[in-house]
Amino acid sequence: MNSETIRARYGPWALVAGSSEGLGAAFAHAAAARGLHVALVARRSDALDRVAKEIRDEYGVETRQLVADLSEEAAPGQIAAAVADLEIGMFISNAASEPQGPFLDLPLAEHLFAIDVNCRAPLALAHHLGQPMVARKRGSIVIVTSLGGLCGLPVFSSYGATKAFGWNLGECLWDEMAPHGVDALSFVVGSTRTPNLERSGAPEAHLETAVAPQIVAANLFEVLDQGPTQYSLPEVEEAARGLFAMPRKEAVGFFSQQNHAAFPSRAD
Amino acid sequence: MNSETIRARYGPWALVAGSSEGLGAAFAHAAAARGLHVALVARRSDALDRVAKEIRDEYGVETRQLVADLSEEAAPGQIAAAVADLEIGMFISNAASEPQGPFLDLPLAEHLFAIDVNCRAPLALAHHLGQPMVARKRGSIVIVTSLGGLCGLPVFSSYGATKAFGWNLGECLWDEMAPHGVDALSFVVGSTRTPNLERSGAPEAHLETAVAPQIVAANLFEVLDQGPTQYSLPEVEEAARGLFAMPRKEAVGFFSQQNHAAFPSRAD
Repeated sequence: MNSETIRARYGPWALVAGSSEGLGAAFAHAAAARGLHVALVARRSDALDRVAKEIRDEYGVETRQLVADLSEEAAPGQIAAAVADLEIGMFISNAASEPQGPFLDLPLAEHLFAIDVNCRAPLALAHHLGQPMVARKRGSIVIVTSLGGLCGLPVFSSYGATKAFGWNLGECLWDEMAPHGVDALSFVVGSTRTPNLERSGAPEAHLETAVAPQIVAANLFEVLDQGPTQYSLPEVEEAARGLFAMPRKEAVGFFSQQNHAAFPSRAD
Repeated sequence: MNSETIRARYGPWALVAGSSEGLGAAFAHAAAARGLHVALVARRSDALDRVAKEIRDEYGVETRQLVADLSEEAAPGQIAAAVADLEIGMFISNAASEPQGPFLDLPLAEHLFAIDVNCRAPLALAHHLGQPMVARKRGSIVIVTSLGGLCGLPVFSSYGATKAFGWNLGECLWDEMAPHGVDALSFVVGSTRTPNLERSGAPEAHLETAVAPQIVAANLFEVLDQGPTQYSLPEVEEAARGLFAMPRKEAVGFFSQQNHAAFPSRAD
């Protein structure tokens, strides 16, 4: 879709949750490159301001920075209130917490934090921001999810489960909102070379296969109206098709092998 | 698996979350019929006591009733503490909230309640009860999920998403816990004739296709050690295979058509 089509179909502002770095920052850049003003949501004010300044300088669009901890119950409502004067035509749900390690070895609080950030906050933001979109009969909701949502994801138990949650939710919103002029979708991303991945301790060989966030972000803007599920790359779609066709034991086994090798825990 | 194998492989007690009626009560009966003592968890004390008395009278096993609201953050820890003197060898996560209606029409609080009951509580209980199982090198964790977790589930948006969460989590636990002697699995249930379904307003034709909870519960005890995903009935497995093979648009469309027909909202 070209920039004019995007602005006309969805409206003038995009809101990107989790946009201080990595894929979220790339989504924000990609939205601004298409002429959208961008509301940026993240926990770290300094990183947010840096991304916002880059975007204003490079594309001449407006930005609004919203410092928020999405694990807090009140955050989605506060964010919605802080952008109530703007027409948010696109909501990209990208923020995610990714606890790494065997399920029982990680503190329960880390898993619950991931549920709050990856399930409660995206659902609540879609609920708050979706209402005015449906009223205006235009808008777009993008739930960023992962191949790891397709089946059990050893080493990243709660993250995988939350990504399955988002994948399912985005597909349902596609069906329910389409009659109201709103394009929703789940956008499935494979391994992306983000600061998060670099901090994970993954070996160089794994990092080298990871794709640049800019490519993933650009591809999203080609498929916004194609839901219910779209993939960041043809290779990711191919991998998903393969996994869907496998007996579940094999699908989980694939991730088990890959993740225990790439992200060894102390017990391995 | 016969009763002796079950008791030897897993231990003397089963804990069933959401066991005051319907499928949960059927799981509790099926566990007791196999000689397991049963800890019953539900919100309604009177219903819990009734099921517990039935079970004691019919099978001569012990019961322990735990009245708890699983939407409360503290509930899983309190439940774990209240059974710390028992060897819980089997945890069946069956409790679920099922908000019915278009995503945006339902109050946000109902969706968040479903996340708390269907995601946070099962994960927390698996974390609390899984630790001693792994230490003893025996046990079983059953995450009850639904075909609706396979793709977006129109009319039951948050329920479908939470069932995707559980499905994914159970599969991961299967992989991570198998080396420690614990059998985990996701148990996928199709339409079951429960009091919940009868209260849903589904037409008689839909109710008639729903399977008796007793059949579903008995089948679980045949597949406890067969994870990562097992199905309540051959028809449910066949349906899942069909849905996995479909383009996502068709899979979501299948549930959209079925659910808008069976569970009409005021807007339909």
